[in-house]
Amino acid sequence: MLSGVTTDPELDGLAAVDLSDTPGLDRFYGVIPAGGVGTRLWPLSRAAAPKFLHDLTGSGQTLIRATYDRLAALAGDRVMVVTGEAHEGAVREQLPDLASEDTVLEPEPKDSAAAIGLAAAILFERDPETIMGSFAADQVIGPVEEFQEAVAEAVATAATGKIVTIGIKPTHPATGFGYIRQGEALTVKGAPHAKDVAAFVEKPAEDVAKEYVASGEYLWNAGMFVAPVSLMLHHLAINEPELHAGVVEIAKAWGTPAQAETMARVWPGLKKTAVDYAVAEPAAAAGDVAVIPGGFTWDDVGDFAAIARLNPAKRASGITVIGETPRVYSSKASGVVVTDTARVIALIGVEDIVVVDTPDALLVTTTEHAQSVKQAVESLKAHGDDDVL
Amino acid sequence: MLSGVTTDPELDGLAAVDLSDTPGLDRFYGVIPAGGVGTRLWPLSRAAAPKFLHDLTGSGQTLIRATYDRLAALAGDRVMVVTGEAHEGAVREQLPDLASEDTVLEPEPKDSAAAIGLAAAILFERDPETIMGSFAADQVIGPVEEFQEAVAEAVATAATGKIVTIGIKPTHPATGFGYIRQGEALTVKGAPHAKDVAAFVEKPAEDVAKEYVASGEYLWNAGMFVAPVSLMLHHLAINEPELHAGVVEIAKAWGTPAQAETMARVWPGLKKTAVDYAVAEPAAAAGDVAVIPGGFTWDDVGDFAAIARLNPAKRASGITVIGETPRVYSSKASGVVVTDTARVIALIGVEDIVVVDTPDALLVTTTEHAQSVKQAVESLKAHGDDDVL
Repeated sequence: MLSGVTTDPELDGLAAVDLSDTPGLDRFYGVIPAGGVGTRLWPLSRAAAPKFLHDLTGSGQTLIRATYDRLAALAGDRVMVVTGEAHEGAVREQLPDLASEDTVLEPEPKDSAAAIGLAAAILFERDPETIMGSFAADQVIGPVEEFQEAVAEAVATAATGKIVTIGIKPTHPATGFGYIRQGEALTVKGAPHAKDVAAFVEKPAEDVAKEYVASGEYLWNAGMFVAPVSLMLHHLAINEPELHAGVVEIAKAWGTPAQAETMARVWPGLKKTAVDYAVAEPAAAAGDVAVIPGGFTWDDVGDFAAIARLNPAKRASGITVIGETPRVYSSKASGVVVTDTARVIALIGVEDIVVVDTPDALLVTTTEHAQSVKQAVESLKAHGDDDVL
Repeated sequence: MLSGVTTDPELDGLAAVDLSDTPGLDRFYGVIPAGGVGTRLWPLSRAAAPKFLHDLTGSGQTLIRATYDRLAALAGDRVMVVTGEAHEGAVREQLPDLASEDTVLEPEPKDSAAAIGLAAAILFERDPETIMGSFAADQVIGPVEEFQEAVAEAVATAATGKIVTIGIKPTHPATGFGYIRQGEALTVKGAPHAKDVAAFVEKPAEDVAKEYVASGEYLWNAGMFVAPVSLMLHHLAINEPELHAGVVEIAKAWGTPAQAETMARVWPGLKKTAVDYAVAEPAAAAGDVAVIPGGFTWDDVGDFAAIARLNPAKRASGITVIGETPRVYSSKASGVVVTDTARVIALIGVEDIVVVDTPDALLVTTTEHAQSVKQAVESLKAHGDDDVL
């Protein structure tokens, strides 16, 4: 599979480093969970058009397309997407090469353990030796070569029988992410940076986050997991046996005439829980988790302040503009404008402003208050303004 | 005419004080110049929908309708409007009782001397004894009874052969208005507060404005003029003889088959100048101008900060909302939202913000920068964005 990738001249730019002799890479399968509305990016991101379907970096690509391309350079066409039924059309439009059997549609959202567990179970049924690599659809990563080198190390480490996470070297004491405490270095062929995971730790308070960063021992938990599907299922079976039984039942029906009926019957009853709790943390406690420190930049584009960070203002005005046909006038203003309309937008005397202009909803806030957008959405929901959510 | 007003039960509330024996009131004719786009209120106010066609106070009335009602209580149906050709339909819709011969349509804007001069000339042709009272269409005044009492005093004073302005007692050292220095008290029957005008003075610097206010001798020049049409024309003829000849030529054709041709031929050549320079200031120098101090509140709604002032926030949130169907959510925000759309607007963490939401243009600024909106409009014009101006 991989040789097809590295000899494809169109992909040469993406796979400048030859990773084709990475142990386990011939068994690698990319998985992209594409759930989550991205409430803090309302009204741009919303139920009908979640974050991963937007180009939030001005790259010309949606986030899910960029995620797919990053993985395809390593996995070829062996990529599976798990997303909501409502997004089937948009996802197929973004990823025309995605196979039908690799398009897993959730009848309702069930959090990451069910999504990743079902992917693992389906892949296990096809080939129990498969190594999966799960990467969320709505993250921004660069440079892509460094990411791919880290994934290759993770695959090589997973091939030794580990669940491997890729942790991000923290650039500031973020309080919005969980952290990974690194343990002893491992000796793995093809993975010179692999280490044991001593522990996963919850989102810290700011002073704790500062200690973490200062110590050099901690990495951000970016929710990236590379692991033998058998090991994922093993830990899921131990910690969430009902959830495990459910995804295995669906996986056994996958690709058979019973697929739709089984999915519709079993999925709604599955427990909502995160893969961190259901697999990663107990597996770490059992000594089964390793980590590759990723030196690439990583952003989960959690709010509009992130969009400002990821899109440095190119105009002298200090305004970052994201939109197809922006007509923005600004004077003594700075911040971010995201526009989904052809309206003229004039900003005067507003600093660090965030303006998100869509046909049916308008948000005006500041980068400082970007995290509060979630409460606004909750309030709108409480007031029955669901039409714009 | 007036008796018809004071006996109209619907107008009793407006004319609570019986002013019907005011000397000269039987010769009174209201004139409403309705020009000016109100650039500082863009994108609400614009060429196609200027300030006077909006309800900026949440009263349920447009500014021009409120202006008409204030005058009609004194002038009955003797009210003339001078406005742009483009606004004919909107003005007639607002003022269905306005007579055709009292609807003066300018083929192009020519500033106040031409507009008020033509009104004076037309009224002079009808009845040379007429006393006109000119009041801009886009001002907010209250209480209406105090305004009407001041106008009645102005009419009584004008009947003695004066051009009479109504000056506003300043409430703060405004630098955006011209001032009127009051002279000696006059003895006029029916006008106990009439005084000579010592001088009109230009918009002052702030320290000068403070001295003006502290002295108690100065009033704001609100551009209100009550005068015998013959005296207005007399001073116009002395100071702007060509402009005078032009408006007289149009006035002589008014109501005849030659009206349209004469207007189209003569108007475009008229000089653009303000009635202050063409009539009021030279007339004051000649000792022909009196002033009535108006104790009513007055606002020319010059910018969105004025809208905030005139519409105290009624909600605990601190946001003033103007619009037909507002759907505004706010958190830690204060300021003004003017909306012409049915969009949901969410404001988070923005203080003294001004958001003006129209179908094709959006303004985000602060009350502090409200005066800068004019530059934005000029810049948009320079960039060819005329479609939204």
